Amino acid sequence: MNLVLFSQTDLIDADLIEIRGRRFSHLSSVNRICKGQTLICGRLNGKIGTGTIESVSNKYCHIKVVLDQAPPKPLPLILVMALPRPKVFRRILQAITTLGVKQIHFTNSWRVEKSFWKSPVLAAEQIKEQMILGLEQSRDTQLPTVIFHRFFNDLVHTRLPDISQNTLRMVAHPKSKKVCPACVNQTTTLVIGPEGGFIDREIESLEKIGFSSYHIGSRILKVETVVTFLIGRLFS
Amino acid sequence: MNLVLFSQTDLIDADLIEIRGRRFSHLSSVNRICKGQTLICGRLNGKIGTGTIESVSNKYCHIKVVLDQAPPKPLPLILVMALPRPKVFRRILQAITTLGVKQIHFTNSWRVEKSFWKSPVLAAEQIKEQMILGLEQSRDTQLPTVIFHRFFNDLVHTRLPDISQNTLRMVAHPKSKKVCPACVNQTTTLVIGPEGGFIDREIESLEKIGFSSYHIGSRILKVETVVTFLIGRLFS
Repeated sequence: MNLVLFSQTDLIDADLIEIRGRRFSHLSSVNRICKGQTLICGRLNGKIGTGTIESVSNKYCHIKVVLDQAPPKPLPLILVMALPRPKVFRRILQAITTLGVKQIHFTNSWRVEKSFWKSPVLAAEQIKEQMILGLEQSRDTQLPTVIFHRFFNDLVHTRLPDISQNTLRMVAHPKSKKVCPACVNQTTTLVIGPEGGFIDREIESLEKIGFSSYHIGSRILKVETVVTFLIGRLFS
Repeated sequence: MNLVLFSQTDLIDADLIEIRGRRFSHLSSVNRICKGQTLICGRLNGKIGTGTIESVSNKYCHIKVVLDQAPPKPLPLILVMALPRPKVFRRILQAITTLGVKQIHFTNSWRVEKSFWKSPVLAAEQIKEQMILGLEQSRDTQLPTVIFHRFFNDLVHTRLPDISQNTLRMVAHPKSKKVCPACVNQTTTLVIGPEGGFIDREIESLEKIGFSSYHIGSRILKVETVVTFLIGRLFS
């Protein structure tokens, strides 16, 4: 655990937290905490700082925290993805949280299987769990916002023009003739299709509202690879 | 399956292949092949081209192939990684194959658990299986080379100077003071540590033979995320 992330409910005094359950087990078995040790701590959606272990029992520990630093800057990226299959969804959610994405939209599209929308991994609690793991990994405290769009056309025609306003509008598309730029370093709305890609009509809809499509060479990457690859390429 | 990858043993005539087993099941159930349909085909370590389905039975299909294109260019990257945990090893191997890495070294390091070296995922057949899946995904035919180094010091002192000769020498290290460059677009040897990072002494050994260490900001990424992220950042 690179950061002990806590929330209001863990506070037992103004600057004292009590950590139990999964986080305590991890701190015991992996970080091997002992009294007096210092750790990096952060408050959910708040600041980051140092925690000193005050006491350790066999079920919990008490940590005195001093939070004096801002969390890392968010990535200037609004990510819009076709809903991936459940197993991949969990991994992607955690990975993009570690990368600093703070606004994530999942949408239906022609090649998204209907069954994906019924998966329990889409429950708010499960989503939060993956994002918390991502924040702990990357030493961040700002929980991303996740929004689902059950209808692609509705998203593109009524919501996406506003969502992507004043941003660079990009869609990753293997059949595009333009090669994806690098180091754009400006606020970007990036749309990524499902396994098998968007169909032509979907790309046309996106182009009509100002999105440009780009390829990244002849290799076809998995969705979970392409997200991380493009974040590495676009921002530096 | 984005590419039907075949080898010598699948050939039943000069330009005719017979596909059975896993690949046939996938072509049947996912690609839903039928007589006359064309697919992208490639010969392992050879060229790429078009295949036309000549016949389909319930156990195999025959495909007539015309191979007239070179496979995608390899990524100019020699990747050296601390051996990851077995589950992650499989995923990384497949992902970096899709990204076009052709020379991969796995090494021991202080924070690599000894048990990782005994995992069955390190068997040659299992490695080849993951790489084949990666090639099929990315429409490539060139099998990467994977080399294991059981001793970090031995690798660094006797092998790595030659392996990395005439390349840009980089090591990813969160504690470094230099920010990782983007778009280097030259042949690079990139070293990536284990979960938890290299210890200082290991970084010093690498620096002594000409490697420079770089960070990518304050976020700590998982090994499988950082590999893809850095490939996106370094090459365009």
